[in-house]
Amino acid sequence: MRISILTLFPEMFHGIFSHSILKQAQEKQVVKYDVINFREFSEARHKRVDDYPYGGGGGMVLTPQPIFDAVEAVQSSQEKEERKPRVVLLCPQGEPYSQQKAEEFAKEDHLILICGHYEGYDERIREHLITDEISLGDYVLTGGEIGAMAIADSVTRLLPGSLGNEQSAITDSHSTGLLEYPHYTRPAEFRGLKVPDILLSGHHKRINEWRHHQALKRTYERRPDMLDEKELSSEDEKILRQIQSEEKNG
Amino acid sequence: MRISILTLFPEMFHGIFSHSILKQAQEKQVVKYDVINFREFSEARHKRVDDYPYGGGGGMVLTPQPIFDAVEAVQSSQEKEERKPRVVLLCPQGEPYSQQKAEEFAKEDHLILICGHYEGYDERIREHLITDEISLGDYVLTGGEIGAMAIADSVTRLLPGSLGNEQSAITDSHSTGLLEYPHYTRPAEFRGLKVPDILLSGHHKRINEWRHHQALKRTYERRPDMLDEKELSSEDEKILRQIQSEEKNG
Repeated sequence: MRISILTLFPEMFHGIFSHSILKQAQEKQVVKYDVINFREFSEARHKRVDDYPYGGGGGMVLTPQPIFDAVEAVQSSQEKEERKPRVVLLCPQGEPYSQQKAEEFAKEDHLILICGHYEGYDERIREHLITDEISLGDYVLTGGEIGAMAIADSVTRLLPGSLGNEQSAITDSHSTGLLEYPHYTRPAEFRGLKVPDILLSGHHKRINEWRHHQALKRTYERRPDMLDEKELSSEDEKILRQIQSEEKNG
Repeated sequence: MRISILTLFPEMFHGIFSHSILKQAQEKQVVKYDVINFREFSEARHKRVDDYPYGGGGGMVLTPQPIFDAVEAVQSSQEKEERKPRVVLLCPQGEPYSQQKAEEFAKEDHLILICGHYEGYDERIREHLITDEISLGDYVLTGGEIGAMAIADSVTRLLPGSLGNEQSAITDSHSTGLLEYPHYTRPAEFRGLKVPDILLSGHHKRINEWRHHQALKRTYERRPDMLDEKELSSEDEKILRQIQSEEKNG
């Protein structure tokens, strides 16, 4: 898989691609990242990439020419057998990013991620060049770079061979539709705080039941919206009723 | 304001804090970032920070000692007049991050952001050390670092003096409760694609009306959930009914 990032601040990516699993995935040739400064494609004087908005107002708007030309240059460098890339605009108006979207992106041969800055993009970029608009969440960032990092990271870890421990990707929160159960490790007592007895019991069936109960409980308490979207087994419905009655009885 | 980041991969932050507005904000002394490797606080052999989970299962769990000690070291380095820091755990089980949370954090003197890796944190960290748990969104990342970057970025841009153009922070998507209207800049025609006539008219009142209509329309089409949460004026209700009837008539 190839992930191309178009940005005005390529240096922001130095730290992230040279550490952790993103570095390992590149070394294993599971993925190839390229970071392109679209300012280099500008035909304007002094390689300008922004201009004042038509109709007035504060802030500067990214002009269409450098971004159109940069995307086309990246597209024309594709290998013949690759499918057409998804061209993803990072912007607050986009579809909220989700694990489902990450799984969809992980099936592609090539992603192009466009990181904006300033007040916004010229609307013609949005209407005629891109295939997806993604927002990282309902908060405002100074640019699209952190969003591109989040997409690169979440997609890379889904690619076969990128995670050392294949199991991890499956049991994670948001992959199972439930939040994760609580984890405990050594020491069994730290500053007077103890690990629950059940985890020290060695009774695997009961430990698994306890964990599943805790995962349901945590999701119910913190993110009931996630339960609404999930199809629950009759067993899970029973556990939930138990959690609700425990809650009522304080 | 001070933002302290506890991580096992401090190098991941090099790119981000030495560019863009995060660099400028530091130079203007609006904010001070410090990035601390909590591995340095480990008292285990070979400075280990993780161990096998009690009760079995895949993945490694972060042990409590290094994180407790690192947080306490950062807390004890506070100036006397500073209020106690918020201690924020980045994790998928946390409260989904929002602009409201960014505004709340921006009022603090000191934030400590803890970035996990591996399978998770020992539950005692969550129960006894931290004040907030934050998730960037419903997707899985390899670690908390990108989340810490998003918090640092979104909080910093809200601090007085950090943004060059003060107006930008106000008109952004998610600050007004509506998505932004479309922006256009030069050229008026690009590859046959034209800027809407209204924006070239010079008629400011009509331009503002058009923009507000477009912002409502875009929010209605893409994020109706945002309209449910917003108190609409009777004027806006009228515009929305108009948008709905246009939609019905194709």
